[in-house]
Amino acid sequence: MTLELGASAVPSVPVDVPPLPVAEVAWRHRHILDVDVLSWPEIELVMHTTDAMKEVLARPISKVPALRGRNVTILFYEASTRTRVSFEVAAKNLSADVVNIAAASSSVSKGESLVDTIRTVEALGAQMLVMRHGVSGAPYLAADHFGGSVLNGGDGWHAHPTQALLDLYTMRERLPDGSLVGRKVVILGDILHSRVARSNIWSLTAAGADLWLCGPATLLRGLERWASASARIPGHGRFQVTSDLSAALADADVVMALRIQKERMASGLLPSLREYAARFGLTLDRLALAKPDALVMHPGPMNEGVEIAPDVATHPRAVITDQVSNGVAVRMALLYLLAGTLERHGPGEEGHRG
Amino acid sequence: MTLELGASAVPSVPVDVPPLPVAEVAWRHRHILDVDVLSWPEIELVMHTTDAMKEVLARPISKVPALRGRNVTILFYEASTRTRVSFEVAAKNLSADVVNIAAASSSVSKGESLVDTIRTVEALGAQMLVMRHGVSGAPYLAADHFGGSVLNGGDGWHAHPTQALLDLYTMRERLPDGSLVGRKVVILGDILHSRVARSNIWSLTAAGADLWLCGPATLLRGLERWASASARIPGHGRFQVTSDLSAALADADVVMALRIQKERMASGLLPSLREYAARFGLTLDRLALAKPDALVMHPGPMNEGVEIAPDVATHPRAVITDQVSNGVAVRMALLYLLAGTLERHGPGEEGHRG
Amino acid sequence: MTLELGASAVPSVPVDVPPLPVAEVAWRHRHILDVDVLSWPEIELVMHTTDAMKEVLARPISKVPALRGRNVTILFYEASTRTRVSFEVAAKNLSADVVNIAAASSSVSKGESLVDTIRTVEALGAQMLVMRHGVSGAPYLAADHFGGSVLNGGDGWHAHPTQALLDLYTMRERLPDGSLVGRKVVILGDILHSRVARSNIWSLTAAGADLWLCGPATLLRGLERWASASARIPGHGRFQVTSDLSAALADADVVMALRIQKERMASGLLPSLREYAARFGLTLDRLALAKPDALVMHPGPMNEGVEIAPDVATHPRAVITDQVSNGVAVRMALLYLLAGTLERHGPGEEGHRG
Repeated sequence: MTLELGASAVPSVPVDVPPLPVAEVAWRHRHILDVDVLSWPEIELVMHTTDAMKEVLARPISKVPALRGRNVTILFYEASTRTRVSFEVAAKNLSADVVNIAAASSSVSKGESLVDTIRTVEALGAQMLVMRHGVSGAPYLAADHFGGSVLNGGDGWHAHPTQALLDLYTMRERLPDGSLVGRKVVILGDILHSRVARSNIWSLTAAGADLWLCGPATLLRGLERWASASARIPGHGRFQVTSDLSAALADADVVMALRIQKERMASGLLPSLREYAARFGLTLDRLALAKPDALVMHPGPMNEGVEIAPDVATHPRAVITDQVSNGVAVRMALLYLLAGTLERHGPGEEGHRG
Repeated sequence: MTLELGASAVPSVPVDVPPLPVAEVAWRHRHILDVDVLSWPEIELVMHTTDAMKEVLARPISKVPALRGRNVTILFYEASTRTRVSFEVAAKNLSADVVNIAAASSSVSKGESLVDTIRTVEALGAQMLVMRHGVSGAPYLAADHFGGSVLNGGDGWHAHPTQALLDLYTMRERLPDGSLVGRKVVILGDILHSRVARSNIWSLTAAGADLWLCGPATLLRGLERWASASARIPGHGRFQVTSDLSAALADADVVMALRIQKERMASGLLPSLREYAARFGLTLDRLALAKPDALVMHPGPMNEGVEIAPDVATHPRAVITDQVSNGVAVRMALLYLLAGTLERHGPGEEGHRG
Repeated sequence: MTLELGASAVPSVPVDVPPLPVAEVAWRHRHILDVDVLSWPEIELVMHTTDAMKEVLARPISKVPALRGRNVTILFYEASTRTRVSFEVAAKNLSADVVNIAAASSSVSKGESLVDTIRTVEALGAQMLVMRHGVSGAPYLAADHFGGSVLNGGDGWHAHPTQALLDLYTMRERLPDGSLVGRKVVILGDILHSRVARSNIWSLTAAGADLWLCGPATLLRGLERWASASARIPGHGRFQVTSDLSAALADADVVMALRIQKERMASGLLPSLREYAARFGLTLDRLALAKPDALVMHPGPMNEGVEIAPDVATHPRAVITDQVSNGVAVRMALLYLLAGTLERHGPGEEGHRG
């Protein structure tokens, strides 16, 4: 696959991968707020575009002029190194100008103020806005008022679409035949409060995986109901919810451990980190329940010794740094695809640059 | 008007606008510390150069090589998003390299230390220095010791020249015949502690506006004396000072509400935000006293519901986001004009880069 | 000397300077962790490369494409303006893409976590990593796990190699015959806790200087033993350790005052800043003990009135801002030399981007 990265048009890419066979698909989205609105062919287009970006990253000078002169503003209301830097590097690799804004959550107390901030950021020249916010849904509000493209870098407990896409890309890259269909994938930990889990449920079931969510019962609350409701809707993904760690890990193809937040103990949902580690920590012994070549994943940053043992984190089957490096390529792909939409259709009704 | 943005010379621009008719003017300033030293033709030159920058911003790739290889350092001793990002985007649009330094006020306790910081920043390569400082006059001290150009991004209660210039530009752009002469402009709020108001007094009276300053008596202290002194000096601007909101708003062409700082209540100058909102908040009812097509302005960030009602902030007559986007263009214009001065005359006696 | 700054090969440079006569030397280091592993010809190569970088800095547009498309990540676990900005400007002058990460020390409590951070930063695309850390040795741990080049920007009390190299460059540039051989250099202050002093001991004794370390006895602890051990090893540098300020300053060619940290008083090592200033502060009277043309140096930031009097800090013999501007050139030279090593030999066994 070849992309003309200096050109403005987004190519139509032949996509011939299960579960949905299609011949061609054009990118039509202006924002990336979650993965739930992406059709399978669109997800495939992201994957193929990511392949092209990985080729770029493998060059001695991994910089292409695709977004030259574009302003990508990274507005983070929560501290982050990994996701913020990943977007920054992705944008700079495409030759965009990057502006970082670290906003203290405290200065935004009302929805109106967030809208003011979004209007201001746009008036300052932002054409693409990467946003992380502690309140679920905040990027949707931003998208309603921003004339360019909004990329959700994580909102509350709701969604983290770029993480789900990089997770999917990493699994496809590392699984023997590059397909998730029928593969047993286990997400292990605090599912209830995890935007990573929530977005992954959408993309992994769409990819045809046999998805299992596992953790303490207090951190799975309400997910059983989602699972059974989802199973009744044709075309919706099915997944298992259980606190039985052995059942979940048995013959798994992929095990993804989630970070345990210390706040969960203050709220009484977890007795202690030590007890969590004892009951649900991913150790070598437990990993032995999975398939011999099972992949180990983690969105980072890791609490080694809590949700994942140090020798599992550095295990040859761990693809945790692959997730990070693929994250840069996935975000390059998304920025590239969204920029193409903006160029063909122009900004939204709010207009940008006046 | 056409500017050769890749070239080094600053063009002489025909200026034929009241109140001062002139044929040509050359830019001669090395710093922008306040608007009070700018002659009217110089202000006109800034306005015309801003027009050219707005043309640049309207291009698909709004980047020109004017300041390629120049180092613009943004040294802010007070938190700011809007002004900092505006300067950063302006400098990057001109292809400058931008260095951000967020300095904690606490680490600068003595004047000597500020001078050391300025010398260090210059030795590190800064050729243009954008500075915000909590102490009035600090950028003047910096200019005494810096070999390049200093741009004041706000100092204490003293001055905020780029805000005044972007306000002036926005009014001229939106008022029917592009002139402020005889137009009634009301600045509403905490005039006493506002560097925005202070700089605007200079530029708006120079533009020939009928300027009214309005707010609670405790926040106007001393301004009556300034007004009457100013009125006695030939060539100096005249303005009204009043706490009578209805008289101020009557038939106004422009109403600019200022942000109310919560610190004012701690110091006993304001009883409460609620009382301020009740007596001086800009509501739709009060705005009806102004002319039907009066402009609504605010330097941001807004306390909606305090100094400005939400439905006024988003009113069709509000030009608040225009102020923000024009701010980028005005700052591009100033950086461009100052860079021309540096190139023709070289750095100051302190020298730069040794 | 001419360097092809757009080309990838590192030239072999004729080095014919005492104390070690050599004809040619090739740069073989992948990291800069301290100066102690640099041979004298290698130090000379850094000096000559710095000369070339100063020529670049003297150009109207001081930007060369040497590191175009390279990712230089600046990961600082301690607050810093001077060193961080110096590296940032150096990297940008070489056209690298720079990513800044300000890491709170508190979030890194275990060695494993630092290793995870290093792996993540590399997976995010960092090819050269500039690192400052409060724990001595941390950059060595980073170098063990990072596939590119690590540059130590200061670790605990241990080392600050780029500071030592810029100090050496500044002395050679300003001393009459450009040589340190036999020159009396005094480092004055809190030697015990100073990474600047520690790195300078290596490079200055290698340069053949007559080095004296002077300060209160509590801040020299253990250094006498180092001095006498060092003197017994052939080829190792000799230096004097004394609390006798007059003896140290007598006929000195260079006097370098170090910053006194206020924390030293909390730990009982210093009675008060006032007493330190009275007994060891570098005043004009004391400077008169040195040679008439002695150089005054300080790594900054200065506590004027404590370790250095204001009139000494701004004395014509003070080369403190030269140190800062030479620091940019030295760091450009090091980034350039390290990049050449990476290109010839490829990244380490950990690999990068892949």
